[in-house]
Amino acid sequence: MKNKESIAVVGAGSWGTALAIVLADNGHEVRLWTQNEKRVEEINGKHTNHQYLPDVELPKNILAFSSIKDVLSGLDVVVLAVPTKAIREVLQSIKNIRTEPFTVVHVSKGIEPDTLMRISEMIREELPEELCKDIVVLSGPSHAEEVSLRHPTTVTVSSENMKAAEGIQDIFMNQHFRVYTNPDVVGVEIGGALKNIIALAAGISDGLGYGDNAKAALITRGLAEIARLGTKMGADPLTFSGLTGIGDLIVTCTSVHSRNWRAGNMLGKGQKLQDVLDNMGMVVEGVRTTRAARQLSVKYGVEMPITEALYGILFEEKDPKVAVDELMARMKTNEMESLVHIMDRQQEI
Amino acid sequence: MKNKESIAVVGAGSWGTALAIVLADNGHEVRLWTQNEKRVEEINGKHTNHQYLPDVELPKNILAFSSIKDVLSGLDVVVLAVPTKAIREVLQSIKNIRTEPFTVVHVSKGIEPDTLMRISEMIREELPEELCKDIVVLSGPSHAEEVSLRHPTTVTVSSENMKAAEGIQDIFMNQHFRVYTNPDVVGVEIGGALKNIIALAAGISDGLGYGDNAKAALITRGLAEIARLGTKMGADPLTFSGLTGIGDLIVTCTSVHSRNWRAGNMLGKGQKLQDVLDNMGMVVEGVRTTRAARQLSVKYGVEMPITEALYGILFEEKDPKVAVDELMARMKTNEMESLVHIMDRQQEI
Repeated sequence: MKNKESIAVVGAGSWGTALAIVLADNGHEVRLWTQNEKRVEEINGKHTNHQYLPDVELPKNILAFSSIKDVLSGLDVVVLAVPTKAIREVLQSIKNIRTEPFTVVHVSKGIEPDTLMRISEMIREELPEELCKDIVVLSGPSHAEEVSLRHPTTVTVSSENMKAAEGIQDIFMNQHFRVYTNPDVVGVEIGGALKNIIALAAGISDGLGYGDNAKAALITRGLAEIARLGTKMGADPLTFSGLTGIGDLIVTCTSVHSRNWRAGNMLGKGQKLQDVLDNMGMVVEGVRTTRAARQLSVKYGVEMPITEALYGILFEEKDPKVAVDELMARMKTNEMESLVHIMDRQQEI
Repeated sequence: MKNKESIAVVGAGSWGTALAIVLADNGHEVRLWTQNEKRVEEINGKHTNHQYLPDVELPKNILAFSSIKDVLSGLDVVVLAVPTKAIREVLQSIKNIRTEPFTVVHVSKGIEPDTLMRISEMIREELPEELCKDIVVLSGPSHAEEVSLRHPTTVTVSSENMKAAEGIQDIFMNQHFRVYTNPDVVGVEIGGALKNIIALAAGISDGLGYGDNAKAALITRGLAEIARLGTKMGADPLTFSGLTGIGDLIVTCTSVHSRNWRAGNMLGKGQKLQDVLDNMGMVVEGVRTTRAARQLSVKYGVEMPITEALYGILFEEKDPKVAVDELMARMKTNEMESLVHIMDRQQEI
């Protein structure tokens, strides 16, 4: 029998709500925070979150709150499920009301432009040491819609303190939602963040009417590009062959659920970036991450042709067709030359 | 300006015909062999191959023949595009009529059950040394339908003689059809063969109504399984991160064009294997390969849980839902433990 706990989920978007369902299914008392008063009423009154997970009935042991103070009071575990952009702001309000240490589980995927920090680094910077017990990242191939429908899903948790990761594994694990551990925090965070860039590119390729062959080539090259940067940043190259690497990349690039893919698809069909973002009504993390990844590629001296092409399309009005065609033509003749750099760091160790 | 050659394509199924189109687009004279007299008439008269590539007009420089002797006379390059099962028979008829050495390009994906030979090994065994100049394998994420429509496609060629591989690269390469080289014949052949097993499993998962999250987990685990076996057999682990590894795996598992995926999908929906095979009208290589791969896993002492589960479904009437659910539940708790075996062989070198 598992221990039943009270757990806070900060952010009632599709992913935060889906994770709240998993925790509630496991018998935990879940407090779900959103600043949207109407959504609080809907969740507590009708047990739905129509905008983000239409047609899903929420378990009764999910209670919504608009006061961050009420959500956090007396809890040990806080799941942070807000867009990368909102993380610092949310943490600042948390640290003003909280005096006891707690474990942060973050489930966002991005890199902060300019500071070039991973999410766990941003959390470490914002939270005073005496408040922050442990930081755990949860990532993997996991569309929220499917998780909310109890479709089989596998994710990975990672932390500098593996005992903390195992505690979080235990809280989330159930028959449909399988949770694995991996000690490589850098690899898990980098894979999750950078796959959104490749998903945008895959969407553009599909939007241009190119087929599955072209998309598979893009994903393959994308994984190599992510792994090249990640290993330079200290990740274990093996992580990119796992759930948070190739697994998440596949699901994000090939599923119609993926908002990054959908945004790319609209770009490929000729829409302008601002129109696409206005139409989505949800955050498209890949757009911000492209800026950050391009800065990282310069900082670490790593060639990232897909990121570079995407940066051109998003921020320099480069024609998507020209950019993708150039990308297809510029691969090295010997395939192993593009792949072998992944191993550079490992061989040095 | 490229040299224009006369090239034989043996086998006028969808892949053989699509490759004939690539070669014809490059200005080569292409002789396409099929034993089906009606198809010869259709190709030469109407310039179509309706059964395999409906709605595609074939270039006029593709000429079909039903006599293998006429096809081969005076040619240096023979592209072998027949199902794995038919390879030995075709080679036996070739060696009876041929006296000059030639280069064989094989584009089939499979392992021979019982002998456990890769395709290039079968070719080497069947053709006398004085007839067989070089053997080149061409593989990668490449649905025939898309190639015939000139959608962008990338493939890899590999040979023990890299000069021969480069010659074949030159013959096929064009603006839409990008050809790369890789010296790792074993890795290229194993990746191409074993991905069909994972595609069957992915189809079953989809047929059961599981979602993209479950499929991404299966593909991720499938790649690890292929790489574990492949490296034991002498492949370079990096090859599995390339076009003929993860690239081909993605396209085969996520595209409706894939016949292995389609066969799996029907199995997942409850159809019997024999009915599925009868309905397909095309060879489903993955079924034969599952038998061979299971034998290989025993021979090399490599754990291959997906192959094992699929063997149960295909040949031991195991219920697909039970098999897939067991598979999802049986992964190791620490994800790196499943992945790290890929590297074993490399570290020994």
